[in-house]
Amino acid sequence: MKFVCDRENFLDALQVVQRAVSLKNPLPILSGIKFEAEENKVFLTATDLEIGIRSSAPAEILEPGNAVLPARYITELIRRLPDIPIFIESDALTGSVAVKYGQSEASINGFPAGEFPDFPLPVSEFNFNIAADTLKEAIRQVVFAAATDENRPVFTGVLFEIQEGRLQVVATDTHRLAWRRIPLENCEDLDINLIIPGKTLNELVKIIGSPDSLVRITVTENQVLFNTGDTCLISRLIGGQFPNYRQVIPQEHITKVRLKTKDLADATERASLLTKEGSSVIKLHLNDNVLIITVNTEAGRVREELPVYQEGEPLQFAFNARYLSDILRVIGSEEIIMEFTGPLSPGIIKPAGDKEYLSLLLPVRLREE
Amino acid sequence: MKFVCDRENFLDALQVVQRAVSLKNPLPILSGIKFEAEENKVFLTATDLEIGIRSSAPAEILEPGNAVLPARYITELIRRLPDIPIFIESDALTGSVAVKYGQSEASINGFPAGEFPDFPLPVSEFNFNIAADTLKEAIRQVVFAAATDENRPVFTGVLFEIQEGRLQVVATDTHRLAWRRIPLENCEDLDINLIIPGKTLNELVKIIGSPDSLVRITVTENQVLFNTGDTCLISRLIGGQFPNYRQVIPQEHITKVRLKTKDLADATERASLLTKEGSSVIKLHLNDNVLIITVNTEAGRVREELPVYQEGEPLQFAFNARYLSDILRVIGSEEIIMEFTGPLSPGIIKPAGDKEYLSLLLPVRLREE
Repeated sequence: MKFVCDRENFLDALQVVQRAVSLKNPLPILSGIKFEAEENKVFLTATDLEIGIRSSAPAEILEPGNAVLPARYITELIRRLPDIPIFIESDALTGSVAVKYGQSEASINGFPAGEFPDFPLPVSEFNFNIAADTLKEAIRQVVFAAATDENRPVFTGVLFEIQEGRLQVVATDTHRLAWRRIPLENCEDLDINLIIPGKTLNELVKIIGSPDSLVRITVTENQVLFNTGDTCLISRLIGGQFPNYRQVIPQEHITKVRLKTKDLADATERASLLTKEGSSVIKLHLNDNVLIITVNTEAGRVREELPVYQEGEPLQFAFNARYLSDILRVIGSEEIIMEFTGPLSPGIIKPAGDKEYLSLLLPVRLREE
Repeated sequence: MKFVCDRENFLDALQVVQRAVSLKNPLPILSGIKFEAEENKVFLTATDLEIGIRSSAPAEILEPGNAVLPARYITELIRRLPDIPIFIESDALTGSVAVKYGQSEASINGFPAGEFPDFPLPVSEFNFNIAADTLKEAIRQVVFAAATDENRPVFTGVLFEIQEGRLQVVATDTHRLAWRRIPLENCEDLDINLIIPGKTLNELVKIIGSPDSLVRITVTENQVLFNTGDTCLISRLIGGQFPNYRQVIPQEHITKVRLKTKDLADATERASLLTKEGSSVIKLHLNDNVLIITVNTEAGRVREELPVYQEGEPLQFAFNARYLSDILRVIGSEEIIMEFTGPLSPGIIKPAGDKEYLSLLLPVRLREE
């Protein structure tokens, strides 16, 4: 393998595939990145066996071939180079790769390229396109509600459900749920239901490039492939049945309020300051167009008073402050609507005037009340 | 205690004194900030018994008095408030303090104010003024060379030596040494020699305010007081004799080179990439106006070649890469001069054209050479 490339493009590709590099895996070669030089590109691949990422950079290929190098060394070296052409040449005998820049040169010892896991791109007729920024926003608005506890795998995933030309994205850890609906073009005949690991989506949003681009999503029985620009990401899917989310979203309410998102977010943050980490419960009291938030702990008391537009009955309930903050952080609208069916039923929180997104938050049951 | 103040000024003062708050001290009250309302100011004080910081914010005092509150709660609360007037009132009976903002209110439980350690400002005829930005720069250029190992306290300190109207600032951990000289005004008669803890100076640079201001330094037998604007910092001094630094700075050299600071800094960083943490030794070879840096490890090899202006003999030696990077990071000039008396004697590194600053770096003795 022998090629000349541009530092900037090469570094971009390195930083993208780096996200799939596994430093903890017992298989040392997974801490590496595979380089394949062919035609007018160098392809970079990394995988932790759960997800795999492949990207490429334009290069002048002087001799096709491949090599696997420790991700950390090659990325950090290229990051620290000046913006001059870089000449890269592998030594087939030793497996080491020389990186030449100006008068200087580094030689990095590699892994045997033949031992790098295969990375076949799945092929399937089940595929659809979605605008990169729409997908990014949907993931951001939903993925926070997924569980991180691996004991119940289904809850660590995000449901992508395509029906009647629309994509519904849903996650829940049983304490809270987030739901987003997006119209898709040319997908009227598609009927797909897949559970994508939350971790995969968290990596995906970081590598989705320019906001104007499209992401092509291809689905097989147990894998999903995201294609965008020069980059693709493959992930395993989570097996099992996603809970019936439709059934837990209340269709009616006894109390409804509208208020400023920032007012509630700031008050929630201040009220939770005095609570202990992990048990940040705040009490909310809705009455007569006023929302009162109270917290009473060993450290002191907070009483926040917020003006709201209220319809329906007065109500008292308690929320986990961190869960509420999470929802308000991603809701992306100046005003929100909250709807309640009772002090112990899940509350609905949604952007004012947007029917395509909502979050559900289960109140906390207080011991002495 | 009862006063009204401006959120912004109050928060500034909180963030300054917060630096002296001790969260690890077995004495819980040291995790607090003492507030004293008198005349038209509220004074804030915090101490970890090693250093103490006092600052103030303008306030409308409705009732003089004092209180001690947990630093974390009061600072985080004020940080999260909108920019509206804040009304603060202590309850002498319970020791709690109410913070009222708009329609809302928090009440934070405090410590008994009488138990907060005394904080007398030292008075002494030994004092001098120095421009804040000059002091800041001198600390930055020297303090990195102080040791962090508390077993040899003298080396964790920075020597401030005033003689003949000049201040010399020196630190060494025995592997490296940094020295800076500054002319002082109106100090011809002063002859002071003090060792200030490196930690104190690291905190000091963070609270020194506007670059145009003056810092007044007052010295007693075992304390030093820094006064600037509304803020003062008191610290204990380190006892003992600072090593005779003059004697270790070589006065002659057999080899001298001039080169670009950035060239050497970048090459050093790249060369140390392949070394193990904690043992990042790089070899340097000076010959015929070329500096060659090499590293050879299990991970691979690096060979960096840099053009230099050389006078004197060829030379081979080895440096700890991290120590060299530390020096180059603070040297603050485009070009540097390095002077050597031999492969095992300390090298001098100084900014080209500046006789008031230098660093000394002891070469590493390589086993097999």
